[in-house]
Amino acid sequence: MAKELKDLTKRSENYSQWYNDLVVKADLAEQSAVRGCMVIKPYGYAIWEKMQRQLDDMFKETGHVNAYFPLLIPKSYLSREAEHVEGFAKECAVVTHYRLKNAEDGSGVIVDPAAKLEEELIIRPTSETIIWSTYKNWIQSYRDLPILCNQWANVMRWEMRTRLFLRTAEFLWQEGHTAHATREEAEAEAQRMLNVYADFAENYMAMPVIKGVKSANERFAGALDTYTIEALMQDGKALQSGTSHFLGQNFAKAFDVQFVDKNNKLDYVWATSWGVSTRLMGALIMSHSDDNGLVLPPKLAPIQVVIVPIYKNMEQLAVIDEKVAGIVAKLKELGISVKYDNADNKRPGFKFADYELKGVPVRLVMGGRDLENNTMEVMRRDTLEKETVSCDNIELYVKKLLDDIQSNIYKKAFDYRAKHIVEVDSYDEFKEKIEEGGFILAHWDGTPETEARIKEETKATIRCIPFDGDMTPGVCMVTGKPSARRVLFARAY
Amino acid sequence: MAKELKDLTKRSENYSQWYNDLVVKADLAEQSAVRGCMVIKPYGYAIWEKMQRQLDDMFKETGHVNAYFPLLIPKSYLSREAEHVEGFAKECAVVTHYRLKNAEDGSGVIVDPAAKLEEELIIRPTSETIIWSTYKNWIQSYRDLPILCNQWANVMRWEMRTRLFLRTAEFLWQEGHTAHATREEAEAEAQRMLNVYADFAENYMAMPVIKGVKSANERFAGALDTYTIEALMQDGKALQSGTSHFLGQNFAKAFDVQFVDKNNKLDYVWATSWGVSTRLMGALIMSHSDDNGLVLPPKLAPIQVVIVPIYKNMEQLAVIDEKVAGIVAKLKELGISVKYDNADNKRPGFKFADYELKGVPVRLVMGGRDLENNTMEVMRRDTLEKETVSCDNIELYVKKLLDDIQSNIYKKAFDYRAKHIVEVDSYDEFKEKIEEGGFILAHWDGTPETEARIKEETKATIRCIPFDGDMTPGVCMVTGKPSARRVLFARAY
Repeated sequence: MAKELKDLTKRSENYSQWYNDLVVKADLAEQSAVRGCMVIKPYGYAIWEKMQRQLDDMFKETGHVNAYFPLLIPKSYLSREAEHVEGFAKECAVVTHYRLKNAEDGSGVIVDPAAKLEEELIIRPTSETIIWSTYKNWIQSYRDLPILCNQWANVMRWEMRTRLFLRTAEFLWQEGHTAHATREEAEAEAQRMLNVYADFAENYMAMPVIKGVKSANERFAGALDTYTIEALMQDGKALQSGTSHFLGQNFAKAFDVQFVDKNNKLDYVWATSWGVSTRLMGALIMSHSDDNGLVLPPKLAPIQVVIVPIYKNMEQLAVIDEKVAGIVAKLKELGISVKYDNADNKRPGFKFADYELKGVPVRLVMGGRDLENNTMEVMRRDTLEKETVSCDNIELYVKKLLDDIQSNIYKKAFDYRAKHIVEVDSYDEFKEKIEEGGFILAHWDGTPETEARIKEETKATIRCIPFDGDMTPGVCMVTGKPSARRVLFARAY
Repeated sequence: MAKELKDLTKRSENYSQWYNDLVVKADLAEQSAVRGCMVIKPYGYAIWEKMQRQLDDMFKETGHVNAYFPLLIPKSYLSREAEHVEGFAKECAVVTHYRLKNAEDGSGVIVDPAAKLEEELIIRPTSETIIWSTYKNWIQSYRDLPILCNQWANVMRWEMRTRLFLRTAEFLWQEGHTAHATREEAEAEAQRMLNVYADFAENYMAMPVIKGVKSANERFAGALDTYTIEALMQDGKALQSGTSHFLGQNFAKAFDVQFVDKNNKLDYVWATSWGVSTRLMGALIMSHSDDNGLVLPPKLAPIQVVIVPIYKNMEQLAVIDEKVAGIVAKLKELGISVKYDNADNKRPGFKFADYELKGVPVRLVMGGRDLENNTMEVMRRDTLEKETVSCDNIELYVKKLLDDIQSNIYKKAFDYRAKHIVEVDSYDEFKEKIEEGGFILAHWDGTPETEARIKEETKATIRCIPFDGDMTPGVCMVTGKPSARRVLFARAY
């Protein structure tokens, strides 16, 4: 059984299969009976809850409040902003009826044709339209601004090719929607929230990200600018991990949301929106995990420490139980989440494999000799290194170890990225390097045509125009035309 | 403006209008553009978040974990359990298509007829069917049991007559779904969760409830028994505030979920489900609030204490600011949520009315004379009583006052209910008393026919057969047939 648990496909053999195996075997999620919709299992959901709680605290610290807007959007609302509907129309789940009835031939339950909606309703793929139709009633004057709302919700985009967490028809996310009196304030808000996302990615998920702005082709449908954080997965593919949009006055104009400013002049309201989703679960898994299973950063691990006893008989177990109870209490006092697994129906080897698979950052083992010596064996999940440590003040040792693991996981991901980001000056070299995976910094002439050609020929996209880094101008690797600065390319999820 | 804020309809004039006014004016919720679907505004959502957090903690303390199941349910799944589909078919939102496209005549966006689903999907009205189809894969042996899952989610029931929070097409709720090896264990779970709900209602919402079991007519569609907590609103109408269902093996049979028990015998799994929803917001509002606005129990108030300065000029305000900062810090140290509102663009009178409307339990005011005397004026929202209190250790005074308010609100609701619960022995008296509102304990012969007749003639329903109280047998007030015990009647929301 222990063997079966660990029997993952190896990353080197088939990364994509490894990912699917891991998500299912570590009890994170599974496919449901409904095409493209997943079930998030309790262990996976516990990680998502840790993410939610932390993000929610960060949103509130930056002055945001939560609210809830309807799931269903009238079709005509979606159409009000031309680019927006163009971007989402192809993947909309449409509600057309509101009642079932028994078939007259007794064949079962059918949709009642008499209960057809006058106007079809769309399950929200994102909520700009329903929210701006609401904001219209909330905003008259500059005194009503800013509005800084966030919503935790499910959304639906009818994707044809789905993968657990990474691309699902239904997913969970948060969407912030803010309204401002000035362009500058809205732009600052969009940047502020991108920084919150980057902070969360780096300091909680232990996942280094590159911040930047999307090219026009890759913008959110209806935005003037889309800011993004881009992470690099272990297989060399990029993953867009969070986006923040400066929407200008597009939605205010579409829904006629005007306000009286300080000078008593009427103007349209400025908007942002920003979101991260359960896709972050995929990013977390692919950033750190290995052939033994999940590797979780301690700050997001539902169980940070697991303690397993090894015993000859129930008498010895009773002694260990008592000794461990004191250690558990001390760990809890330090705010560490700990599980003591003394279940008698599973062998230690099975437990070891299972907690490795589930990515529990620290494992403590106490056996007969440890009892005699007042020690425990400590294993850290990130390196699989073991040490024997005295029980005296072991809680302080563990606390420090959790911090070390958090830093080490980040460092490992950072080093991997550093090794997989190259500057390239010719298109031939680009085509060669892109096959190796990783980020490529190259010059581009700034046109959608060249961008489309590169995508067509290499499957690589511009992940972003980074905010930081080398700002030196150059010439486009494809056309030789002037380039303002290098931009970030990769193949992406 | 202060006047306008307080300008609620009086409860004595039109209770229903008072409720609607209050929900909208206190910024709790409003109607959306989508029929029957509400927008939960930030202040209302903040109260809901406090409820969620507390309930979630209680679920976890009783061994439950959260998970997430799909929003959409295949129509055929809903039909598997005969009573279940009968109960929900008439109010189902049905997804029939998955794409929009541009109309060929350029008239806008239409539903793409080529993107019709093979099988229609229903937006979950409740999740028993999709969850039990999932549990089938999770359960093989008694070792896999119990499963104790909860889900926080949105659900949809296409109600024709909607009222904010009380009855909306879309609402937010939690739904627990558990799976057990024995009937006894499942029944105990259903009772346990009803007790959790009662604990929450009484000790957090400060709302006394009567626990009992529903008559067959009022059972959840697909349950063998529905347990309920029933509260009495200020207008004498009952409100079902939470239900917990013993589902027997109905859903296990419908989805063929069998397990091997300890004796190596195959049996169907036993089930429960239990839920509370944003309807509790309506219950909270109608239990305590008055003609000045909301009255919130301190344990669920997003802002427990508001501090308002009264000042002659900005110099004096600066002195008050400094003095109040120390008090705010001390209150926060005690875990009290406090807001200091020194905004200069609103008068104290406006602020007073606004915070009364919003139900902030304690208001502290500091003016010039208070500064001299080292005092503050304390007002408690539940009684509107004012006192002048020394600033020394005022945080301890406030902490105790919050506890007092919590108890007092409960006591007030309890006393109201005690005055509005009567025993009645004749049907004539019943008809008279039911017009006065309140709970009525009366004998009933136990038949659905008599129950239906009473409902038809008086609009009263059996709220529950209480677990506690007078167990003496008698004769049915309508038919004169034997009655095992008195049951609880009321008109209800």
